[in-house]
Amino acid sequence: MRPPLPYPSVSAPARTLARDLPSLPPGTVVRLQGWVHRRRALATVTFLVLRDRTGLAQVVIRTPAGQDGVGHGAPDVPPEETTVEVTGTVTANPQAPGGVEITGLRDTGRGESGPVITPLTDPAETPPVELWRPALTAALPTLLDHAAVAWRHPAQKARWEVAAASLRGFRATLDAAGFTEICTPKLVGTATESGANVFPVDYFGRPAYLAQSPQFYKQQMVGVFERVYEVGPVFRAEPHDTVRHLAEYRSLDVELGFVRDHRDVLAVLRDVLAGMADAVRASGAAERLGVEVPKVPDQFPVLHFADALRLVGAPADEPDLAPEHERALGQWALAEHGSDFVAVEGYPMAKRPFYTHPEPVRPEQGSGQADGTGRARWSNSFDLLFRGLELVTGGQRLHRYADYVAAIEARGEDPVSYASYLEAFRHGMPPHGGFAIGLERWVARLVGAANVREVTPFPRDLHRLVP
Amino acid sequence: MRPPLPYPSVSAPARTLARDLPSLPPGTVVRLQGWVHRRRALATVTFLVLRDRTGLAQVVIRTPAGQDGVGHGAPDVPPEETTVEVTGTVTANPQAPGGVEITGLRDTGRGESGPVITPLTDPAETPPVELWRPALTAALPTLLDHAAVAWRHPAQKARWEVAAASLRGFRATLDAAGFTEICTPKLVGTATESGANVFPVDYFGRPAYLAQSPQFYKQQMVGVFERVYEVGPVFRAEPHDTVRHLAEYRSLDVELGFVRDHRDVLAVLRDVLAGMADAVRASGAAERLGVEVPKVPDQFPVLHFADALRLVGAPADEPDLAPEHERALGQWALAEHGSDFVAVEGYPMAKRPFYTHPEPVRPEQGSGQADGTGRARWSNSFDLLFRGLELVTGGQRLHRYADYVAAIEARGEDPVSYASYLEAFRHGMPPHGGFAIGLERWVARLVGAANVREVTPFPRDLHRLVP
Repeated sequence: MRPPLPYPSVSAPARTLARDLPSLPPGTVVRLQGWVHRRRALATVTFLVLRDRTGLAQVVIRTPAGQDGVGHGAPDVPPEETTVEVTGTVTANPQAPGGVEITGLRDTGRGESGPVITPLTDPAETPPVELWRPALTAALPTLLDHAAVAWRHPAQKARWEVAAASLRGFRATLDAAGFTEICTPKLVGTATESGANVFPVDYFGRPAYLAQSPQFYKQQMVGVFERVYEVGPVFRAEPHDTVRHLAEYRSLDVELGFVRDHRDVLAVLRDVLAGMADAVRASGAAERLGVEVPKVPDQFPVLHFADALRLVGAPADEPDLAPEHERALGQWALAEHGSDFVAVEGYPMAKRPFYTHPEPVRPEQGSGQADGTGRARWSNSFDLLFRGLELVTGGQRLHRYADYVAAIEARGEDPVSYASYLEAFRHGMPPHGGFAIGLERWVARLVGAANVREVTPFPRDLHRLVP
Repeated sequence: MRPPLPYPSVSAPARTLARDLPSLPPGTVVRLQGWVHRRRALATVTFLVLRDRTGLAQVVIRTPAGQDGVGHGAPDVPPEETTVEVTGTVTANPQAPGGVEITGLRDTGRGESGPVITPLTDPAETPPVELWRPALTAALPTLLDHAAVAWRHPAQKARWEVAAASLRGFRATLDAAGFTEICTPKLVGTATESGANVFPVDYFGRPAYLAQSPQFYKQQMVGVFERVYEVGPVFRAEPHDTVRHLAEYRSLDVELGFVRDHRDVLAVLRDVLAGMADAVRASGAAERLGVEVPKVPDQFPVLHFADALRLVGAPADEPDLAPEHERALGQWALAEHGSDFVAVEGYPMAKRPFYTHPEPVRPEQGSGQADGTGRARWSNSFDLLFRGLELVTGGQRLHRYADYVAAIEARGEDPVSYASYLEAFRHGMPPHGGFAIGLERWVARLVGAANVREVTPFPRDLHRLVP
């Protein structure tokens, strides 16, 4: 038996990344790899701006002068977006980005051997959008149709880096607080949570559905781990075309047990968003985009739903906040509390899902049993608004089996169809609650994108299933 | 306008977790929260074992003796699985787990005020499986039918902790190596990658499919970020009922650019698995389960597919490795290299997907153009076997647009149906490759579970869509 083959050895210098160039001593010979971001041929010099995952590097190729002193044409630099390897020398140049550029291997005074440029693929075709310009100017449909290429633009790329950093901050905060990451099924047997807006799946000839949220599963897993989170796709067959809804989006779900009420949930949400904001700040992506990362206050300003209605001048019997109400509350929070965030608690039970925990009676505020049915009017749930837009929904859930049976029967349904979900409650669950953050919405609001599709690499909606 | 409500204040001592009890001075008054894991009433004493997310704590309730010296019945401890709060005193007892137990609030010599036990819900119904026994003895279908409760068992819970730790180790390794986390769509417009085994979705009245892998998208994102990873669900309509396949599982996907060949990909895979194994070790879950975390060698032993066939005594024209071949190779790796892992490279092109990069001709080994068609016989792809079972598939991919067109046409398809995927290659892609690890398979093999369903909280297969 032959011994295993050795890994190939490397004789070339290790690859250098663009961001590391300024820290290298001038004269260092480096090997760069990346895309031809821009090439520009002048009379006696050609500039090649190389783009790699860490940034841009300027490569200078002097055109050899003939005996008549005239340049003999631009050197052979492949077209934009071709992937290349460049070997050359680090040279100080205060005019170059980062104060350095890459020049030839030897400068003998009379002429130099230019940087060695080796294409790694065939010459690239001209991209459908101009990636080398400071800003992407194409219309949104063009950017979406050509996502694979358009996302290469440094500004577009930085937007996703905000998302990736947010995911890191989300998990780091929760890992440190004793949460366990879970993975729950996206194929489910019943469209129970809302009934509407579900995608049907042909599951081995039987009907199944795509999960609209991990809600039922994350609650069940509170019975196992107490504190859980999940980052995963959720699916909503949204029949409306709006700037803030997608048919598939990333939900950052959290659920925790042994809470007193929804205020304990809000406190965890605060820490999570602070962790996400910190991670975005540390990534440098927001700075490159010129956007301000919000300061997350030690405590969110909290308004009761009834007070929020009064504050925005809406009728007291409005069951929900309209977008203009949310904007007004965002302005109030900024003016009164210097906060980009405001929590509205106590949403009417009538507008919340059946598993929502009611608000205990507060006679002094006219809440509690308001409709003579013995059912509470307000809930222990909340929305968190970020810069005037709903970002997070959460709250305390029911935890007694009998309460679930009553809540399900009250909406005319049979608890038997919820049997596997309810099993957790029959066998002991703690008071608990949780929340869900929409990743795309958070990023859009943070970077100032008007449409969630601008920050979603391959959005899915009523019209778009490709690319 | 009323000011925002303050958060509720807490007068009770902060909650103490079971794992922290041994480090507290005896006499400390603590408040615990958790599930009644076990209650046992003896003549003059009742033991309550409390379970929280960090472990178990023993609570001792002495039965008040009457004037006749006879105990007056067991105190009121709610049934197993009821969630409770317990307030009591930390007391040293070498016989108790961790050397401490919780006793009453005051011991006045003649009698004590027992620990205060407050139920947080209605009394729990008797669980369908006995959670307090050291091992879960119920049959697999019972455990799966009652997943929400069965996973509360400490041994079952530890199995998922292995999974959660593996995810942490996976991401930490890749974050440190300059990879960017991506989220790609699970709803796709065409069932292109394999054509078979896809789940159809009714997408607003149009046909769509659930993604079988993020393959096409992760490759496109290499054009943006060079190095990417994704943890997400993948969907396979597997018509067979086997112990190692699920209809929905978690795929840990990695893809990276600027590789020389698949060996660079293997080197990243090694680091990733080492990071996962380290994180599992650090979690303590493997130790609690009594299973050995594999030592990941500095380099995997690597066999060429042709050599692997010879080694196991299979005919040289076998197109794939059978399970018994994989087991034999696993034994070989352990015996010859002391390794739980062995990589098999060079799988026949005929058995690999169209985007697979061929192996360069190696005349000395009889590889290369073997069939007279000008097409390579072997590929730059690999499988990694872990303890004799395929765990990872990966390799180098094609990176030239012209190669893709040729590969797609060679299987009688029209490149136009791959237009959005191929756009990335038309506009410059680096040599690249990647791999995918099946999370459930990794955990099952690591903890010694014969069936992936044993380590999957809510498995999906031909028969199972609930819970």
